[in-house]
Amino acid sequence: MEKINLVSGMRSTGKLHFGHYMGVITNWVKLQEEYNCFFFVADWHALTTKFDKTENLKQDKLDVVLDWLACGIDPEKSTIYFQSNVAQIAELHILLSMITPNNWVERDPTLKDMVKILKNKDENNSDNMPQMSYGLLGYPVLMSADIMAMNAGIVPVGVDQLAHLEITRDIVRRFNNIYKTDLFNEPKPKLTQVPLLLGVDGQKMGKSFGNDIKISDSEETTSKRIMQCITDRTRARKDDPGHPDNCEVAFKYYQTFADADTVCQVECECRQGKRGCADCKRQLGKIINEKFAPIRYKRQEFERDIDKVKDIIKEGSKKAAAEAEKTMQKVRDAVNI
Amino acid sequence: MEKINLVSGMRSTGKLHFGHYMGVITNWVKLQEEYNCFFFVADWHALTTKFDKTENLKQDKLDVVLDWLACGIDPEKSTIYFQSNVAQIAELHILLSMITPNNWVERDPTLKDMVKILKNKDENNSDNMPQMSYGLLGYPVLMSADIMAMNAGIVPVGVDQLAHLEITRDIVRRFNNIYKTDLFNEPKPKLTQVPLLLGVDGQKMGKSFGNDIKISDSEETTSKRIMQCITDRTRARKDDPGHPDNCEVAFKYYQTFADADTVCQVECECRQGKRGCADCKRQLGKIINEKFAPIRYKRQEFERDIDKVKDIIKEGSKKAAAEAEKTMQKVRDAVNI
Repeated sequence: MEKINLVSGMRSTGKLHFGHYMGVITNWVKLQEEYNCFFFVADWHALTTKFDKTENLKQDKLDVVLDWLACGIDPEKSTIYFQSNVAQIAELHILLSMITPNNWVERDPTLKDMVKILKNKDENNSDNMPQMSYGLLGYPVLMSADIMAMNAGIVPVGVDQLAHLEITRDIVRRFNNIYKTDLFNEPKPKLTQVPLLLGVDGQKMGKSFGNDIKISDSEETTSKRIMQCITDRTRARKDDPGHPDNCEVAFKYYQTFADADTVCQVECECRQGKRGCADCKRQLGKIINEKFAPIRYKRQEFERDIDKVKDIIKEGSKKAAAEAEKTMQKVRDAVNI
Repeated sequence: MEKINLVSGMRSTGKLHFGHYMGVITNWVKLQEEYNCFFFVADWHALTTKFDKTENLKQDKLDVVLDWLACGIDPEKSTIYFQSNVAQIAELHILLSMITPNNWVERDPTLKDMVKILKNKDENNSDNMPQMSYGLLGYPVLMSADIMAMNAGIVPVGVDQLAHLEITRDIVRRFNNIYKTDLFNEPKPKLTQVPLLLGVDGQKMGKSFGNDIKISDSEETTSKRIMQCITDRTRARKDDPGHPDNCEVAFKYYQTFADADTVCQVECECRQGKRGCADCKRQLGKIINEKFAPIRYKRQEFERDIDKVKDIIKEGSKKAAAEAEKTMQKVRDAVNI
């Protein structure tokens, strides 16, 4: 039986961090065994909020793919591409925009968050450029075009993105209804239980918050960052009994990255006041560095052969465009354009 | 010296009428001598209001081009294409949408008219589908992409469309400013003095009003339609003195289609009560049929060789796509995507 198409993308934010790794990539690596996966760098989407900051865009896009490849996204199994390399997505975007009532996009919950972010940006923005663009408003339409161009049957989403996919499902139904066709699948959400990984300061991990650890960070940098992790703030001396439940970051990282036995041992020793936080984090750093060593090694190999990476993206983009063209031929027929 | 690029389009409304002929096509025929003209059938734009009525879209698009060719738009001089055949326009549309503040498109005066039309439609619409689409809102952005993809220096517009082109000029300036480039020309409006041609009933000529005469109408149909033209409503008998100034349609058609001597003679005889309205319109029909005879003949020739027409469109679309690709290569560089 043919595998179902699955589409998922990440913005071109540059080098990815542990949050991306745990939240998205490990999941993708599993999904590629079961589905016909289309993984794309959302460079057009990146422009919805950063159209005026594109100096590093090309390198950022490459860095994202380097991290994917290093972490085990396999171009033999999955199609890896840049969104902007698939003109058919732009074409479909126009056709979908014509059938999407404007109040559907205005209603989008994520949009409201984005506008808030932009407003904050605006206050710090001396040239005071108007920031809410027509393209940002249409974010859900472009996202729908991403998914529908590959006629995906499955889209991995977090709970907070369910509303988003609902718009795509609405647009699919509307298209099929208006043009009396069943050419588009209603993409089903594949709910992913994402363990939210906090930054070293205990806040949400994010590049812009300066609290992230990159997949590609060196052993040394990683160790240093781990030493900055917040632990149990109520613990004064290293032989005081600790409270792993109150350990804001370090113990959570143990739970994420260490094996069960180690977690158990750490918990015990901490409660008994047998391990100080500094030592504990030193060990954590080692565990994490061990885990990421082969990934970093693989990344460096790809970095040295960057032409090969570019070829992978080129080939993937070609494959994605061919898939989208297959869809678009049916779409143009259905619309009778 | 290289000719300046000029872009102009018409919606895919099907067979064109005298209003189109006088208002647009005769002007285009002249322009193609002076400029490097890109004339396109705006089939994507047609979907902004008629996304759910596309049964005849393909034939309508062909009919528009048949009329152009019959009237003297010359594929050797001008590039004739379907908008939807140029994917680069869709790609540029996405990039422009990211830099276009949403309040620019909301402010668009034409949009307000369109919304009004749609609201009227809605009231007669039993299934009550929401009609104001995201794509309709973005009409000025897509129009800008049409113009900017060919990097046009000139756009022919009527006075009522000046505000529209102003948005495009704003978007051009904003793009050049954000990406520190001068790659886009600020397209200058070429104001066209369009003699507004009324329908046979004295109202604005329009297909949907049923008061139009098609360029491709037969001699017989044309004569019949001309006989329906409103004349001087105050005139009771044919030997009463007439008032050409009050002749609502017929005399205006004389002024549009007949030579100066004939107009003079008609005016004199009418005032003196020497020519009845019926006779007068019979003569008008003959004059118009004579004028359109070679156009109709040429159209029928093209109709018989429809593959040739399709080839012209295919070739034109290829040329347009090549021109747009030339622009897009610079655009992608400037955006650094």
